[in-house]
Amino acid sequence: MARALCPGSFDPVTVGHVDIIERTSRHFDEVLVAVVTNPSKAPLFDLDERKALLGEVLAHIPNVEIDSFDGLLVDFAQERKISVVVKGLRAVSDFDYEIQMAQMNHKLTGIETLFMAASPKSSYLSSSLIKEVARYGGDVTGLVPDPVLRRLADRFGRGSGND
Amino acid sequence: MARALCPGSFDPVTVGHVDIIERTSRHFDEVLVAVVTNPSKAPLFDLDERKALLGEVLAHIPNVEIDSFDGLLVDFAQERKISVVVKGLRAVSDFDYEIQMAQMNHKLTGIETLFMAASPKSSYLSSSLIKEVARYGGDVTGLVPDPVLRRLADRFGRGSGND
Amino acid sequence: MARALCPGSFDPVTVGHVDIIERTSRHFDEVLVAVVTNPSKAPLFDLDERKALLGEVLAHIPNVEIDSFDGLLVDFAQERKISVVVKGLRAVSDFDYEIQMAQMNHKLTGIETLFMAASPKSSYLSSSLIKEVARYGGDVTGLVPDPVLRRLADRFGRGSGND
Amino acid sequence: MARALCPGSFDPVTVGHVDIIERTSRHFDEVLVAVVTNPSKAPLFDLDERKALLGEVLAHIPNVEIDSFDGLLVDFAQERKISVVVKGLRAVSDFDYEIQMAQMNHKLTGIETLFMAASPKSSYLSSSLIKEVARYGGDVTGLVPDPVLRRLADRFGRGSGND
Amino acid sequence: MARALCPGSFDPVTVGHVDIIERTSRHFDEVLVAVVTNPSKAPLFDLDERKALLGEVLAHIPNVEIDSFDGLLVDFAQERKISVVVKGLRAVSDFDYEIQMAQMNHKLTGIETLFMAASPKSSYLSSSLIKEVARYGGDVTGLVPDPVLRRLADRFGRGSGND
Amino acid sequence: MARALCPGSFDPVTVGHVDIIERTSRHFDEVLVAVVTNPSKAPLFDLDERKALLGEVLAHIPNVEIDSFDGLLVDFAQERKISVVVKGLRAVSDFDYEIQMAQMNHKLTGIETLFMAASPKSSYLSSSLIKEVARYGGDVTGLVPDPVLRRLADRFGRGSGND
Repeated sequence: MARALCPGSFDPVTVGHVDIIERTSRHFDEVLVAVVTNPSKAPLFDLDERKALLGEVLAHIPNVEIDSFDGLLVDFAQERKISVVVKGLRAVSDFDYEIQMAQMNHKLTGIETLFMAASPKSSYLSSSLIKEVARYGGDVTGLVPDPVLRRLADRFGRGSGND
Repeated sequence: MARALCPGSFDPVTVGHVDIIERTSRHFDEVLVAVVTNPSKAPLFDLDERKALLGEVLAHIPNVEIDSFDGLLVDFAQERKISVVVKGLRAVSDFDYEIQMAQMNHKLTGIETLFMAASPKSSYLSSSLIKEVARYGGDVTGLVPDPVLRRLADRFGRGSGND
Repeated sequence: MARALCPGSFDPVTVGHVDIIERTSRHFDEVLVAVVTNPSKAPLFDLDERKALLGEVLAHIPNVEIDSFDGLLVDFAQERKISVVVKGLRAVSDFDYEIQMAQMNHKLTGIETLFMAASPKSSYLSSSLIKEVARYGGDVTGLVPDPVLRRLADRFGRGSGND
Repeated sequence: MARALCPGSFDPVTVGHVDIIERTSRHFDEVLVAVVTNPSKAPLFDLDERKALLGEVLAHIPNVEIDSFDGLLVDFAQERKISVVVKGLRAVSDFDYEIQMAQMNHKLTGIETLFMAASPKSSYLSSSLIKEVARYGGDVTGLVPDPVLRRLADRFGRGSGND
Repeated sequence: MARALCPGSFDPVTVGHVDIIERTSRHFDEVLVAVVTNPSKAPLFDLDERKALLGEVLAHIPNVEIDSFDGLLVDFAQERKISVVVKGLRAVSDFDYEIQMAQMNHKLTGIETLFMAASPKSSYLSSSLIKEVARYGGDVTGLVPDPVLRRLADRFGRGSGND
Repeated sequence: MARALCPGSFDPVTVGHVDIIERTSRHFDEVLVAVVTNPSKAPLFDLDERKALLGEVLAHIPNVEIDSFDGLLVDFAQERKISVVVKGLRAVSDFDYEIQMAQMNHKLTGIETLFMAASPKSSYLSSSLIKEVARYGGDVTGLVPDPVLRRLADRFGRGSGND
């Protein structure tokens, strides 16, 4: 019945994303986690890798399904008959952009966006910051799920900021 | 099943509050609208008036119940077996305080707070601003539901900024 | 006498821009609407198209003139003997950047920048968001003036998020 | 013709206020500086003192008039046939409140509010902070005009944070 | 030599305050923790209690001294020959006020204020929120040091939001 | 003993940077100013020019050393045995990003970041804005140190917005 859509680039999925999806899964019957493909940005992990990693790290949540889309969020949501989007808010700079998107999407099809405060312990995380740290050999243990840690090590070498 | 709590002072209820409650009622099975009583502030309308006005202006929404509480939101929510709070966000200054409250409440009992962007057309409304305008005879037609308009007129005289 | 400059990329002009220009035209004798050309960004509509669209959608305002410039705003303003810039503010993220530009421009030539709050109904609009929606066939009726709607349909196909 | 209203508590007027009023006076034919009386706050300087101080410190600006009002800004503006309010913006926390007031006032009577960025050198000033510093003998030379400096010294003793 | 001042109301001290003071103590030779007394607010704990609690919860930091002052921070700092203040920043709403105070204090005596980001795990804590929760019997274990927890229980009854 | 790291692109150094470095040098025994090289951005001035300009404009501060690094800030800091970073904060949009970086860096190696409010007179300056103004012949006298002014003139022609 009550289904929620959690969209994102997930390039790669972080512990902050997992936290938002877990919390969403407790309050909705089903959660559709959808990877947004953005043709104008070259991702670190391709679409199949990102979906596979999400599958691994969300395997413990029974009511989660993983999919992807390009085009407009509102079109994908209508096609999948979902009327609620759930997103995490970390900081004020998120707020302005996300509110703007939520109001635009509501205007387009009436879809509702619900925001959750990021958990304090992951409020400073972003996929792009994690990629930058990992690229230079910094240790992101604890900031991404273990399967992601291994894939980052495959890409950049198993590094640590401390050795 | 999925029940949401919409707390507030509602002194008085505005069209912005009604918008948030209507939108919440579409995505949850039941919505409990609860007037928070704050012993340190003297309200314009007493608790019974505020509940009566909510009853009138929300009468068209079948899955809404109206109640009140003092004390902690988390205690009231536990007693009523509700695990989700829904609140409107208007501006960045709301954001900081509401995120802080949401994180504290989550820490206390695990209760989840979901935020909705205020509708653009009511993003500048607040109960306190409406009271200030009405007190000096300004016309708040369209900013509060009609029953509230009448009660404000009873209190302050039927005024308008334009006559 | 009192003349105001409304600069922008206007790629394309939105109902939010029209609102700011209309309101400006009520309080100043003349309004110069100037398209800024930015050599480092490829626009959707070229300079002539943008000026032609502005001409169409602002035709009902008698005291508006349309022009364009490259280079510094302050140089263009001095050349045209205009001492006041008027800009719309939508959100806090606008605020920081616009205040910085206003203080820099004031330092350079003493030019004054006056800000207007965007109308609530267009506070979530931006040219870039509208292009993104239109590109994927979303329906932006009501968000841009009709002549812009037709030109977007010419470019991207007459689409709608609902069909 | 083009007249602007600069409202404020001016308890007391600071160099930041003077800067905004001077800049406004260059772009409007007349500036009406109006002291707002707020019955729920006990001012440091009574209404007559505040108007007298404004008279002294603005005496060099020929097109300034000083007045006061209680009640709603929009009613006073209509009575005085003024359709533009000019206010200074210092920080993001100003922004949210001022935008809310501007949108409410626009809704009430169509009055327009124009914002100016506070000069960087006075962006940290507020009347309340200056009163707090002066009360404890801190030296506010340069932060308020000289006549205000003398009145603060009369009230609190001629103090300085450095002696 | 390098000495830092950590001022605050500390009514009561939270784990967020302790975190800031511990981190400051690692980078400065001495840290002076100073309770600000504010005659216009009635504290929950009187000055002696607040200093005693600080003494208990900071006893493990050798280079910390505890004191109190009324009046201006800059005067107290000069008297104690301290030229650096260290403060925690939690949220954007802190930022505006704290930057304003820092610029005013720098103007008054040249004193420097250094800011530290609050630890993510205590970014939502404030003394006033903790008092509100404790007053209604909410469980603030982990949010304040144990000695404070006991004193809150003495005041409000040993409560918990969960029993 | 107490050493601080001031990192930045310094492309080019502005009077705002100089202010932060001067103030840092008063409160720490040594200040290491380090140019960050970012392989994905083409700078206006190459690394050697940026270091040479810093050397010229900071020559009056005896306890400043100039260096550069690529890779992670935390790795460079560990290698140089520095445990404190000092950065200037200008506006709320700085705040969100800088707090995120500070918390990430603290998580990676425990390094502490201390923030200083930008001086009001340079709060609107940024290297990128200065380059944009200088590129179009605007006069940035007073916004960058004199040696930088000369180098910008060499690059873009000795221009001024006023002639």
